[in-house]
Parts: sequence; C-alpha cells; structure tokens
Amino acid sequence: MPAPERLSLNTATVRPQWNLAQCVDGCLRHGIGGIAPWRDKVHEIGLKQAARVIGGSGLAVSGLCRGGMFTAQGALTDGVLEDNRRAVDEAVAIGAACLVMVVGGLPEGSKDIAAARAIVTDGLAKTLDYARTVQMPIAIEPLHPMYAADRACVNTLGQALDICDELGDGIGVAADVYHIWWDPDLAAQIRRAGKRRLLAFHICDWLVPTTDLLLDRGMMGDGVIDIAGIRAMVEAEGFDGLNEVEIFSAGNWWKREADEVLATMVTRGRTAS
Amino acid sequence: MPAPERLSLNTATVRPQWNLAQCVDGCLRHGIGGIAPWRDKVHEIGLKQAARVIGGSGLAVSGLCRGGMFTAQGALTDGVLEDNRRAVDEAVAIGAACLVMVVGGLPEGSKDIAAARAIVTDGLAKTLDYARTVQMPIAIEPLHPMYAADRACVNTLGQALDICDELGDGIGVAADVYHIWWDPDLAAQIRRAGKRRLLAFHICDWLVPTTDLLLDRGMMGDGVIDIAGIRAMVEAEGFDGLNEVEIFSAGNWWKREADEVLATMVTRGRTAS
Repeated sequence: MPAPERLSLNTATVRPQWNLAQCVDGCLRHGIGGIAPWRDKVHEIGLKQAARVIGGSGLAVSGLCRGGMFTAQGALTDGVLEDNRRAVDEAVAIGAACLVMVVGGLPEGSKDIAAARAIVTDGLAKTLDYARTVQMPIAIEPLHPMYAADRACVNTLGQALDICDELGDGIGVAADVYHIWWDPDLAAQIRRAGKRRLLAFHICDWLVPTTDLLLDRGMMGDGVIDIAGIRAMVEAEGFDGLNEVEIFSAGNWWKREADEVLATMVTRGRTAS
Repeated sequence: MPAPERLSLNTATVRPQWNLAQCVDGCLRHGIGGIAPWRDKVHEIGLKQAARVIGGSGLAVSGLCRGGMFTAQGALTDGVLEDNRRAVDEAVAIGAACLVMVVGGLPEGSKDIAAARAIVTDGLAKTLDYARTVQMPIAIEPLHPMYAADRACVNTLGQALDICDELGDGIGVAADVYHIWWDPDLAAQIRRAGKRRLLAFHICDWLVPTTDLLLDRGMMGDGVIDIAGIRAMVEAEGFDGLNEVEIFSAGNWWKREADEVLATMVTRGRTAS
C-alpha cells in the first residue's frame, strides 16, 4: 500500500498523452515521488533540458528505460555497444538510480536462443565495464517468456541472477511483477537477489483475459497479480526504492486523460497494491 | 525430420473442420501414424464409437487431451475429481499412451497462485491413485507462463517434475515445444525427466509476432522454435513416441481445408522440424 510519494511514474504509462515536462508536472501535481523516463521522452526534449526539468523538480529517478537490445543487429556491433554507452551517460545525466536493460530477443532469422543469450551476456559485460567507470548500476529486467523471441531472451529472475553472478559487481535486476508473478521459483530468487541486486521494482497488473501480448497491461487491482505479496518479498530483503508504475495499455489507459491515469495510479497504489 | 508415420494428429489442429471419424480417415489418407483426440471429439460421437473408430484404424493414440482443471471450482470438488476419473477411463477405452493434464489456473477471484498449485498437486495425487489401478500414465503438461492465470499454474518442466518427484510412479510430463522452448533450464530438465517420464512430445511453432495468446500457434517452420533441437534432446533420453502436432490457429489453419492442413503437417514434419 505505497503512499503516492513511494510511487514512480514510468513515462510509458502515459506515453501517447504527455511529454517529459508534462510527466514531471503531473507527478508533482499528484504527489508522486519519482519518475522513470523512457529514452524517447528524453530525446524528444533533449538530454540537457530533460536533466534540467527532472533535476529542478525534486523527483527521484527510479530508472532510465532502457538500454539493451544487444541482439538487434545479429551480432554484437559497435553501434549497439555505443548506443548502450550513450544510455549509460543519459542515465547519469538525469540522476537515474539505474539503467534498465531489455536485452533483446532472437536475431532476425535465428532459432538459436542459446546463441542469443551469449550475445546478451557479452553485451552486458561490455556495457558494465563502462557503467562501472561512471558508477551507474545496470539492472537486467527479465521479461515474461512470451517476449523471448522478439524482446528479451532473459526471462526469469534466476537466469538474470546467473548473469549477475558471472559479471560481478555493479549489476542487478529490475523486478517487474508483470514479468515474474507466475514464476514458481519467485520467492527463492528474490531472496537470492538480496537488497544489493534488487535495483528496481515495477508494478502493474495481469488482466484476465489479456487481449494483446504487449499493450494490454492492467492498472493495479484490475488483474490477478498479488502485488502486495511480491512487494513484501522484496521489502523483506531490504529493498527501499520506489514502486515504479509501468502500464502499456493501448486500449484503455492510453486513451484516457493522463491526469485521470495518475489519479487512479495514486488511488490504486493505496488500495490495490 | 519425422516421417509421416512418426507424426500424430492432435484433433485440435483441425477442430472446426473435422469430427473424430474424419480425423481418423484423414490420418490414414495422409500416412500419419497416430492420433490424439480431445475429449470433445470423443464425446461428440460417444466413447464406444470413438474406441471402435480408433481401434479399427490401426492408428497409435499418443494421448487423450485432457484431464485436469483442478482449480475450476475454487476447491478440489468431487465433481472435478469424478470428471478426471472419467477422463482416465476414456483414455483407457481408446488405448491412449497417456492422459494429458492441463491442470487449471487461478480460481475465480483468487490471486494466490501458491494455493492454486497446492490444489493442483492434490488433484493430481488423487487422480493418479485411480489411474494406477488401470495402468494409465498421467502426463502433466506445463503450459507457457502466459497461461498461468487462466489455464495452468504449472508452467515449467522443472515445476512439473517436482510434482512428479513428490507423487512417485505413473506420472510424467507432456513436453510441448510451444510451452517450453524459451526455458533457460530446458536441456537440464529434459535430462532430469528421462525416458520414463517423457510421456508425450508435442510440436508446432511460435510465430513472431503472435497476435493472440491462445489461438495463434504456427505450423512447424513458420516460427522461431528450434524444434529439431528440442526433439534431439528428448530422443537423447530415449523418447520414442510420436511427434504430436497440436496447432490452435483461428486465423489461419482452422480456416483452411483440413486435407491441406494435414498435407502441410506431413511436409513440414519432414522439412521443418
């Protein structure tokens, strides 16, 4: 039951409605304590302006979404690595708590998910080398297995933590209830992650039925995820970051007034998560 | 690259087109070696007639779909258990190699997936007690995590095998590439299952993009699953059952002539799996 100041607005939640400055103003108006921009919103107004707008607001920045997509060009190219270094720099510039990584799925034409995972680990390692030099924590976000082909071939907390074990300090996980709620090994893997590697906690809900694989996430309370139960697990490890609300919802929330979305988010934060 | 006689037609693949007798005739016409009926197709013509039609055909029966749905009434009721005993009897009557279990998701209104899983394990145990008396193997089919809420809260081979370990002899798994291809622990869990517990092997493909969570499965070769690679894993354990083709496809294969579907299945069996 987080109070508004314990929530963070992921800009994807109002992606079609608001630019970054409007998102910041909206958070202040609704008493929301933090923000997590996607890079498109940062680029839209420019990095310097984004850093100024956010920095002047007093909002916490629970993360920058997103780096990753290491498999986008088939092999790990300089272009992909350069884009990830830029993402690290942007995360630093806006004072983000972490850079969230959506690692990429199968390369075009490939059926070799083990090879894709090897590319991803290599890309994370190289990006981490740079991120360490500027003290920016890297947060691997395991995505729901239904995104394994086209968005991320890291699909469980356990798998993400195996990569963290391999790569060492400076890397952890972003735990999004939408992606992990079903995992029979969830409690054990959250314990395994521990406070040091729990870098972000994202909330929303799983609707029944879900009518679109990508753009039909639910507002907290409208679905079946035991959000409070999962929060209790991360808080038992000492996680004290914000509850970042990230809702892709083409058919519902993206069609409403953004102020209504934020007001609902605040209410549901208190009553349904 | 299974030859047609190594394939089995799951009746769901031509669900809107054909009844059970037509499915049997189709298999014989196309040289397909086995069949796996859903219970609706059996009930449609009656169990005795179904047993006669299948028994007289010489087709192998790679499984009966499906028992399970233990959570459908919130708690494990006599009605649910009785239906599962009937499913066991039907599997025996048609000479099925196993009874496939789709175990059920969250009970209506529940967010407690651990409780749902406990109901499922209890239901499997009680059904197994009966199935052992008639020597009918029970095959838990872990479903893709995107079905955790509404169809099956057993979502990985590892989780299914944990249940098998707990319940003992007479129970194993149905490995469907659609549900398990993404699993980072797949190879290890197939090894763990071993020949004795690999009771069925289902094939189809994962389309990119997938436009419906339930009814947009692909024909082998149209998607991204390394079917041959996964078959090699199960065959390395000694699995020598049929390759059961189960494709729910409202927008494509269910709209075609069923003979075209079976002809494609035979071709793709040779060339794309």
